Amino acid sequence: MAGNKAMTSPEKIQHLRDSIAAGNRDGLMREMTQHHPADLAETLLALEPAEIASFIELLGPRESLEIFEFIPFDVQSLTLKYLGRPSLAKLMNIMSPDDRADLIEEVDDDFQERLLSLLLKHERQNVLKLINYPEDTAGAHMTTDYAILRPDSDVQTALEQVRLQAATKETIYYIYVVDTARHLVGLVSLRDLIVARRQSRVAEIMSKKVISVRADEDIEDVATLSSRYDFLAVPVVDAEDRMLGIITFDDLYDIMADEATEDMYHLANLDTDEKVDSPLLRSVKLRVPWLLGALGSGLVAAYTVSLFAKTIHEVVALASLMTIVALLGGNAGNQSLTVVVRALALGEIKVAHDWRVLMKEAAVGLCNGVIVGLVIGAIAGFWSGNPWLGLIMWLAIVGNLVIAGLFGAMVPIVLRKLNLDPALGSSIFVTTATDVGGFFIFLGLATLVLPHLMPK
Amino acid sequence: MAGNKAMTSPEKIQHLRDSIAAGNRDGLMREMTQHHPADLAETLLALEPAEIASFIELLGPRESLEIFEFIPFDVQSLTLKYLGRPSLAKLMNIMSPDDRADLIEEVDDDFQERLLSLLLKHERQNVLKLINYPEDTAGAHMTTDYAILRPDSDVQTALEQVRLQAATKETIYYIYVVDTARHLVGLVSLRDLIVARRQSRVAEIMSKKVISVRADEDIEDVATLSSRYDFLAVPVVDAEDRMLGIITFDDLYDIMADEATEDMYHLANLDTDEKVDSPLLRSVKLRVPWLLGALGSGLVAAYTVSLFAKTIHEVVALASLMTIVALLGGNAGNQSLTVVVRALALGEIKVAHDWRVLMKEAAVGLCNGVIVGLVIGAIAGFWSGNPWLGLIMWLAIVGNLVIAGLFGAMVPIVLRKLNLDPALGSSIFVTTATDVGGFFIFLGLATLVLPHLMPK
Repeated sequence: MAGNKAMTSPEKIQHLRDSIAAGNRDGLMREMTQHHPADLAETLLALEPAEIASFIELLGPRESLEIFEFIPFDVQSLTLKYLGRPSLAKLMNIMSPDDRADLIEEVDDDFQERLLSLLLKHERQNVLKLINYPEDTAGAHMTTDYAILRPDSDVQTALEQVRLQAATKETIYYIYVVDTARHLVGLVSLRDLIVARRQSRVAEIMSKKVISVRADEDIEDVATLSSRYDFLAVPVVDAEDRMLGIITFDDLYDIMADEATEDMYHLANLDTDEKVDSPLLRSVKLRVPWLLGALGSGLVAAYTVSLFAKTIHEVVALASLMTIVALLGGNAGNQSLTVVVRALALGEIKVAHDWRVLMKEAAVGLCNGVIVGLVIGAIAGFWSGNPWLGLIMWLAIVGNLVIAGLFGAMVPIVLRKLNLDPALGSSIFVTTATDVGGFFIFLGLATLVLPHLMPK
Repeated sequence: MAGNKAMTSPEKIQHLRDSIAAGNRDGLMREMTQHHPADLAETLLALEPAEIASFIELLGPRESLEIFEFIPFDVQSLTLKYLGRPSLAKLMNIMSPDDRADLIEEVDDDFQERLLSLLLKHERQNVLKLINYPEDTAGAHMTTDYAILRPDSDVQTALEQVRLQAATKETIYYIYVVDTARHLVGLVSLRDLIVARRQSRVAEIMSKKVISVRADEDIEDVATLSSRYDFLAVPVVDAEDRMLGIITFDDLYDIMADEATEDMYHLANLDTDEKVDSPLLRSVKLRVPWLLGALGSGLVAAYTVSLFAKTIHEVVALASLMTIVALLGGNAGNQSLTVVVRALALGEIKVAHDWRVLMKEAAVGLCNGVIVGLVIGAIAGFWSGNPWLGLIMWLAIVGNLVIAGLFGAMVPIVLRKLNLDPALGSSIFVTTATDVGGFFIFLGLATLVLPHLMPK
């Protein structure tokens, strides 16, 4: 695709490095007209923070702003330390309010003080307001650069006002209609405005039922809401319906992607700080605690098995077959768990339906246990020549798959009710339940019918 | 949030049903001004297709179009069968080209014929072109309703042309500049156009480096591309760079969400057709094949264990401890697998780095094996009072976690190279590798040092 051609290569990196070292401003400006800011940012990421700072000094803060905003926060903050005071002050004052607040939140306290001191007073107040919202709320993700109109303007004037706001606002495609106390009273899209008769009033063409979110709402719920309505941006209001900011679709898109990664990672017992290219020791450090958690679960399962040592000693085939009981239970539990976690993330489970979901997953476990248990029960029976072994295998699979369905559905629903992440650590709970349950039922039944299982 | 208030309730459903039955057009029109089309669509979904059809007849196809487009395809196609011919013809001719093509593709052959016969000639050709693209390509997801301009128009004229296109185009916020042969030569945003001097030419203000995709490109790659650049829409071109259509952010958002669901489901051995509210028997039917696949894996693992029956008979504690070896291997394998699958989905692994990813995951397995193996080795040694048991436990965990890292990374990378879904069935492969490998190493080592393990 055309996008790929623009992506980074060793030659591109060297070329950029050389242009910066040579102070070749014209060359860099030419690069900027030829590449998307996201691509230039990716190439810059291969350089040292000091070089990125030189790049910004050379081009000027305003010219390099768009590229800078595509650089991750950690590199941004390293880069800032190499910038001269005038460029630093300029850059901080023109950044998007949401990106700026996120960046300032990221840096250490001393540097945070310094950055805040460089801001104009109203920009500083803005930052302080934004960083006060907890990380997972709508308020923490909103930008305060949104376009507004008054309901009593005519369309001709409104278009002129939008034009004046175009350069500094995050989007001008949705324009929010507010009264003098900044209450959100309507929404006009630029499309509506452009096709409207020039003499109409904004109040006549705006939609009055504006779907908005409160600043303290969970950002993941906002992302779900936005995808439901195909919004370009969602307005954020306070308890009195006064406009505070907007969250644009690209931020919501990123939040949704991060949320999906988080669920996937938590289901697999991974820390969300890990990346495929995390350094070796960091990956090790992030994964060990989870493996130790799994080990705890394993010890409980192993203890369960050890309770039946005498039975296994008599009928060693049980040691082979019990692994199948555990494996199928784990698999079925993971199926239920994943369906429920994903449905919770997409807002597909309503609280009133919890019970129904639990019952359904248990019923699926029962049916699948009967079917799959028959297959493996028949195999075990024929293989050993002992129908009793087939029978207890079948019963154990049925029992374990019911446990799998129950716990697979219950664990995330309970975590959610406790306001915890439904995916976090849930697979360890579910595996413990299916391992212990499976071993206990299978080896317990075997102990009960032991005389029938003994080799003749 | 305000959105929630608008969502569906039994009272809303009954009210809508009554209004439709009473033919209360004015009441319905009032509902439409008060609710978002997505919310009305959700309420409609609680009604019978025949009632939805009456709703459309009552309001008229044009008025109900936006709501209709929020209804899922399967319900859309059931509803169409109840519509009178004039409404049906009208509705089909005004639907968005991409939604219409998807719908027509969904219905059975006879009904497809009938729907196509109702279309105006150029709309019919359009549908036939769109349904010819394979499902997972950019072409299949694009709409042909995009706004265009000529490079030599002045801004004043261009604004007037955009205004004329506003009613019928999917978006007018990105406008594509094409030459007389419809080659894509530039892009202007409506924002650029609004702030430009009225006398400028479009060619002067457009960006000339437009990132576009080919109609045969993988739609998931397009979604990744679009999130990288924060595009509102991505243009789709043919091999000669001629405009064919656009894909808008809301469709790309849905595709990304579906892709994340798909990866999560495939990692958990689930079919993507399943939903949390799928009927019981459908869920059973969709999950059984996966469980049988896992059963196959379990049989291989059980067979591996049975090879060491004599050893287990002598030292029954091995049967307990081997479950921990398998559990930790499965967990670690799942960690590597998930990191790699997600990185592939987000385009974070470049082909040249495959080897590095594989080596890193194996190294993480080695380190984690050493650490976690020491913990469980010490526990096993002390618990049994036999250091040999601790030693083989440690070695087996190290070996199995290296296997976990290698297979966890290799399976999705190989599947991708074969142009298959990297997540599909991968966990069954990886679990088989860690189960068989873990049992084999642990019980094999135990057999080698058996005299040291025998109870005295």
